Amino acid sequence: MKQKKDSKDYIKYINEALDAMHYPDQPRGLYDPIKYTMQCGGKRLRPMLLLAVADVLGLKPEHAVKQALGIEMFHNFTLLHDDVMDRADMRRGNPTVHVKWNEATAILSGDAMLTMASQLMSDCPDGKLKEVMAMFNKTAMEIYEGQQYDMDFETRDDVTVAEYMEMIRLKTSVLLGCACAIGAMLAHADTSVVKAFYNYGLSLGLAFQLQDDLLDTYGDPSVFGKKIGGDILNDKKTFLLITALERADASQRGEIESLYGQRSDEKVARVKAIYDSLNVGDICRKHISAYIADAISHLDTINLSGDAREFFVELAESSSDRKS
Amino acid sequence: MKQKKDSKDYIKYINEALDAMHYPDQPRGLYDPIKYTMQCGGKRLRPMLLLAVADVLGLKPEHAVKQALGIEMFHNFTLLHDDVMDRADMRRGNPTVHVKWNEATAILSGDAMLTMASQLMSDCPDGKLKEVMAMFNKTAMEIYEGQQYDMDFETRDDVTVAEYMEMIRLKTSVLLGCACAIGAMLAHADTSVVKAFYNYGLSLGLAFQLQDDLLDTYGDPSVFGKKIGGDILNDKKTFLLITALERADASQRGEIESLYGQRSDEKVARVKAIYDSLNVGDICRKHISAYIADAISHLDTINLSGDAREFFVELAESSSDRKS
Repeated sequence: MKQKKDSKDYIKYINEALDAMHYPDQPRGLYDPIKYTMQCGGKRLRPMLLLAVADVLGLKPEHAVKQALGIEMFHNFTLLHDDVMDRADMRRGNPTVHVKWNEATAILSGDAMLTMASQLMSDCPDGKLKEVMAMFNKTAMEIYEGQQYDMDFETRDDVTVAEYMEMIRLKTSVLLGCACAIGAMLAHADTSVVKAFYNYGLSLGLAFQLQDDLLDTYGDPSVFGKKIGGDILNDKKTFLLITALERADASQRGEIESLYGQRSDEKVARVKAIYDSLNVGDICRKHISAYIADAISHLDTINLSGDAREFFVELAESSSDRKS
Repeated sequence: MKQKKDSKDYIKYINEALDAMHYPDQPRGLYDPIKYTMQCGGKRLRPMLLLAVADVLGLKPEHAVKQALGIEMFHNFTLLHDDVMDRADMRRGNPTVHVKWNEATAILSGDAMLTMASQLMSDCPDGKLKEVMAMFNKTAMEIYEGQQYDMDFETRDDVTVAEYMEMIRLKTSVLLGCACAIGAMLAHADTSVVKAFYNYGLSLGLAFQLQDDLLDTYGDPSVFGKKIGGDILNDKKTFLLITALERADASQRGEIESLYGQRSDEKVARVKAIYDSLNVGDICRKHISAYIADAISHLDTINLSGDAREFFVELAESSSDRKS
């Protein structure tokens, strides 16, 4: 790879490796949905992080690509099963597997993706195997816990911001930390460097999820790719809603609660007006900036070249610039 | 353990280890269904095989118990998810997880059980890790393929006995082979011994599944534990039905096909009468005996003490004696 790092180069490398992956022909009912899921696109953020960390620490991408594919396979498995649990019909503009095929197919193909992810992860030097698998499996357990808390929150009306942050740490952020940490492990980094990159990924993941929450309500409809206000329509317990409920007076809280279950554009406008009056958008932006600063502070404990540092700083800062 | 091997001793050891397993307290929605599933009983055949093989090859049970628990956790994960896919309401006399809780819980708890199984499997000496994980993950993929074929068979009316045997090899038998092989690997056995024990488990598994098919139609209602004839009522493509269809004349085939979808005691009696006239019960019994002989022939390639050989021979022979 050229000296100046570019995330597009890593993503191109990953997409080529994904295209070159071999799947058995039979039984088609098991493998077709896996191919479909893996080829439905996505940002490839997690494998990109894994490759980039390995690369800046001196490991060639071909020695980390199996684990990069493994982490992407795992991520897509969680999306596939989450879509069944949440009864979501569309993902990245395509029908979800349980809609295109059926629910049994979605469950079984997802199970196979988890095992395939484990196989890809295990395909590493013997001396790194235990450490890599321990990190991967621990992270997987945390992600299931995060998904469980997310589902629990649906029927609770007293979720605190702290509980929400812990939920997104588990459900989303640890996988970014895990991707960075495994990249560092494979490159034979010291424990302190593995840990610093893990923490970088964790803070990046928190910023990333808060930006997701922000865009869903405050994004630009022309570039966001989904309908603005979906979270409000679905009464989703996001950072914005929980922060608003914590700060609302009795009348504002009553208004928000009276709108639960409704699905109109007027609802989106009214809830957004309350958010605006309580400044929850700005509060969210401040938290995003703080997590980005956290991410960068972890980088500063690692001895990196100027180019490498710049790459990861830009990546963190772009979390708050992104529009989709 | 005492010199003369007894499967009950191994099972007691496993059940005590299962009872002593630690699960996190929170989130309860994730871990309660896992505890429930693991405590709902079962024959513990797979972990028993793993411990027994390790033991006769000189490895103490405490050095194989993690993997024994891992294989039982994996087996229970497959049952949990299969029950969702098959919409089964009861398992071992208890409501299934998706009935007692809900479907999302059953999917997510199952996912966590697969990862926990992988964690337990990985908890072995570094030098054995790659080999153990490769065997475990390969077996898991085969089991998903078997489940997919089993589901595919539901909508096909031209399934051959050979296809059926391949399906049960994948869905059921490879896990018994895997249990035996991992027990041997952990005990530092030569590749040829690992392979012979794998093949022993595989043949045992085929005999075991055919005995399941036989008992469902020809079992003794007072000891079988489930209603006799369930497979016939559900038009399940078992060894008996497929063999009957292969041997039936046009009128018998027409009678069987005319009964599909019905759910009466009369249906069970009429299909069973056709089975009897075609001798499919005897054909099944002969196949069971042949697989038991196969299993024993694999044992004979291994240098075992008289007691050890006797244990595995008795275990194989008891497959065709068992009533439930």
